[in-house]
Amino acid sequence: MIDITLLGSGGGMPVPNRFLSSAILSYRGRKILIDCGEGTQVSMKINSTGFKAIDVIVISHCHGDHIFGLPGLLSTIGNSDRLEPITIIGPRGIKDVLDAFRVLLPYLPYKVNILEDPIDPILFNIQEGILAPLSRREAKKKKTADITISTIGLLHSSPCLGYSFYIKRGARFQVEKAEENRVPKILWNRLQKGEYIEYEGKIYEPSMVLGRDRKGIKISYITDTRPHVNIEAFIENSDLLICEGTYGSDEDIEKALKNRHMTFREAAQMSRGSSVDKLIITHFSPAMVDPKEYINNALEEFPETILAYDGLTTSLSFKE
Amino acid sequence: MIDITLLGSGGGMPVPNRFLSSAILSYRGRKILIDCGEGTQVSMKINSTGFKAIDVIVISHCHGDHIFGLPGLLSTIGNSDRLEPITIIGPRGIKDVLDAFRVLLPYLPYKVNILEDPIDPILFNIQEGILAPLSRREAKKKKTADITISTIGLLHSSPCLGYSFYIKRGARFQVEKAEENRVPKILWNRLQKGEYIEYEGKIYEPSMVLGRDRKGIKISYITDTRPHVNIEAFIENSDLLICEGTYGSDEDIEKALKNRHMTFREAAQMSRGSSVDKLIITHFSPAMVDPKEYINNALEEFPETILAYDGLTTSLSFKE
Repeated sequence: MIDITLLGSGGGMPVPNRFLSSAILSYRGRKILIDCGEGTQVSMKINSTGFKAIDVIVISHCHGDHIFGLPGLLSTIGNSDRLEPITIIGPRGIKDVLDAFRVLLPYLPYKVNILEDPIDPILFNIQEGILAPLSRREAKKKKTADITISTIGLLHSSPCLGYSFYIKRGARFQVEKAEENRVPKILWNRLQKGEYIEYEGKIYEPSMVLGRDRKGIKISYITDTRPHVNIEAFIENSDLLICEGTYGSDEDIEKALKNRHMTFREAAQMSRGSSVDKLIITHFSPAMVDPKEYINNALEEFPETILAYDGLTTSLSFKE
Repeated sequence: MIDITLLGSGGGMPVPNRFLSSAILSYRGRKILIDCGEGTQVSMKINSTGFKAIDVIVISHCHGDHIFGLPGLLSTIGNSDRLEPITIIGPRGIKDVLDAFRVLLPYLPYKVNILEDPIDPILFNIQEGILAPLSRREAKKKKTADITISTIGLLHSSPCLGYSFYIKRGARFQVEKAEENRVPKILWNRLQKGEYIEYEGKIYEPSMVLGRDRKGIKISYITDTRPHVNIEAFIENSDLLICEGTYGSDEDIEKALKNRHMTFREAAQMSRGSSVDKLIITHFSPAMVDPKEYINNALEEFPETILAYDGLTTSLSFKE
């Protein structure tokens, strides 16, 4: 099971009563934070997410409303006694931003590994208690991992990434199959975990003990951007899509085009085209006092839509 | 009259329901902001202080809880259509910090003038509608100005400045004196404003038309530091002292010594020794849930003490 808590639902600038768009994914006690505007760490306190278990931070783009909370958060994580490295993923420019922040944070007790604009999906396993990326060699060998993070370039006014998080569901172990394939019992456990093993001159692989793959959980996070057919392909079959809808009213389409954002209707249309199970619209313009006024613009296009609010938590379980 | 609003009263890290220590001074429609931790701009929204009229930002020191709100604030000020320059005063290191922030803010529509660790008091006049520092030559000539900002080095774990703000009260214009000194009427207005004028071969000076100086208003802002006799001299005769008291309990003196902060009692003792009219204690440790529990530790030393809370506004008028 995976929990996603929205730490904020606003865009542009922090305002009273609405934190900036950000979310935290929680899986087997480890956390992935998505975006970190000014105040995100306060929302984390309010929502009791803790700081120490954040292993990965993904940043959509380097506009202030998505990054200005980073120096404070990295500092607070440092005060939480964390010593394990943190992985930060972001678009082109994220290294310069982190370099600038490090001027303000000369002493952090943990290492920060930056993955700038990664092309290939990144495989993460829980290793030695934390969610850490597999090395390229390991990734080639394993092909799947506990969580796979993929990125897509979005259409915004600065380099910007959308993300999907795929949480693997292990295939079921089949004793009959293992016995049929004459796999020595001593190898069963390692094969179940996905290893390929050479043993007494013979190659054993996971498929010799496992049933067919079972569907995992896919969560996509898309902000800030105009809609695009490539994004529709990227978010396809998501169990949950969290997507920006900066403007509620259809009449704001000109602003959406100019500022490279979406309306509620556009976010919903994109979801309808992609077999998404459930859509949460977020990243509301500070000018929009009550997003609920405009929810019908989304529901007309895609009934499985809800509007974000700070603290909204969704729990997703494996199906079947 | 001058208004001082406390935008926050916390130290260390931002927490729910208590913004980080910061204050805004408002004088004839122009504003001076003191410190800017993460979330300060949200408190400014809550307290309706506006963004566009901030002419001066003074920074006590470059720890995160006093500066991490700067990039967001500078960006929001940029969105407020401000074009006039802003003066930022801070301790040694402030230029490096601002350079780092500028990586994140390549486009600001106004200029930022940085005064790093200034030794001499800085004279500010309202000039062309904004509060701007006098040039060194002007300052030598005028000697006094609408607001004079002085600094003192504090005793903290990084270079840190205390500030005082002296708001001048103009001397009364005396017609009899001007006539007695045979000052041409055409010069009266300029002399009243403090100018020295050469006219028809003769030097005229303000004292030829003005009565004796009247007492202005002095506000001091001291955080973060241990107490010291030099600070007592610096804050002497303040109408209002806003002073850190990170720890309420006397038992926390060891922590105060170690972390270079003060207890409530120490802040109050310092005020008693300095003929301060009124003390506001601020910059409470996040661990202190209810500072009021400890107010007696301060009141025993200095009865004119109140404890800060977010949004507390004090209005000071010229006396007599």
